[in-house]
Amino acid sequence: MQNAQTLVSQYLEAFNETDADRRRELLEALYTPDCTYTDPQVDLRGAEQIDGFIEQTQERFPGFTFTLGGPIDAHHNQVRFTWHAGPSDAPDDFVGFDVIVAEEGRIRNVYGFMDAAPAA
Amino acid sequence: MQNAQTLVSQYLEAFNETDADRRRELLEALYTPDCTYTDPQVDLRGAEQIDGFIEQTQERFPGFTFTLGGPIDAHHNQVRFTWHAGPSDAPDDFVGFDVIVAEEGRIRNVYGFMDAAPAA
Repeated sequence: MQNAQTLVSQYLEAFNETDADRRRELLEALYTPDCTYTDPQVDLRGAEQIDGFIEQTQERFPGFTFTLGGPIDAHHNQVRFTWHAGPSDAPDDFVGFDVIVAEEGRIRNVYGFMDAAPAA
Repeated sequence: MQNAQTLVSQYLEAFNETDADRRRELLEALYTPDCTYTDPQVDLRGAEQIDGFIEQTQERFPGFTFTLGGPIDAHHNQVRFTWHAGPSDAPDDFVGFDVIVAEEGRIRNVYGFMDAAPAA
């Protein structure tokens, strides 16, 4: 993966993009048409579903920012990394871990897991 | 994944199975026909290639045993876990991490990463 760092950056950027048009444009360019996104809560297919999920996440957690939690580890068409999310005064309230599988430079699959979340 | 624990156990068992016929039988039952296995060193497709890779691994590291390194974390059709491998006097010489994606109870994709290896 020549562009793994960029792909991961854009992946997180999409979660932070609150302008609906810009986000949709970003997602369409970033993901393959048959992409999947699966984390403990959701199992999505295609950029439109992912867009809707990000919109819901932003409504549920206003002001949250998603950031990279450490170095990425990439080889072949796959990359693993940890991410943080939270409000500005607790930026790592949520800690997650994803494996992204790419195809021709775009995201084909996201396999997400959770490592930490604040007590509900 | 109802059978994630079993799938991971059988996945590791196949690495430890030195009887070629039994291993091939196990792999054919465990993996889907279009399965993939990708770690930092190899990018394989199909049970035959995986079988050949396991055979080479056993020849390169005779007497090594692969074991589960901790609890598995499964949801939907995906599971993550850490594995250990090594000789009986250093069973966690090698530490790896895999995400397995299943389809109808069989392994469709293995996305492997390395966490530790002895200095060469």
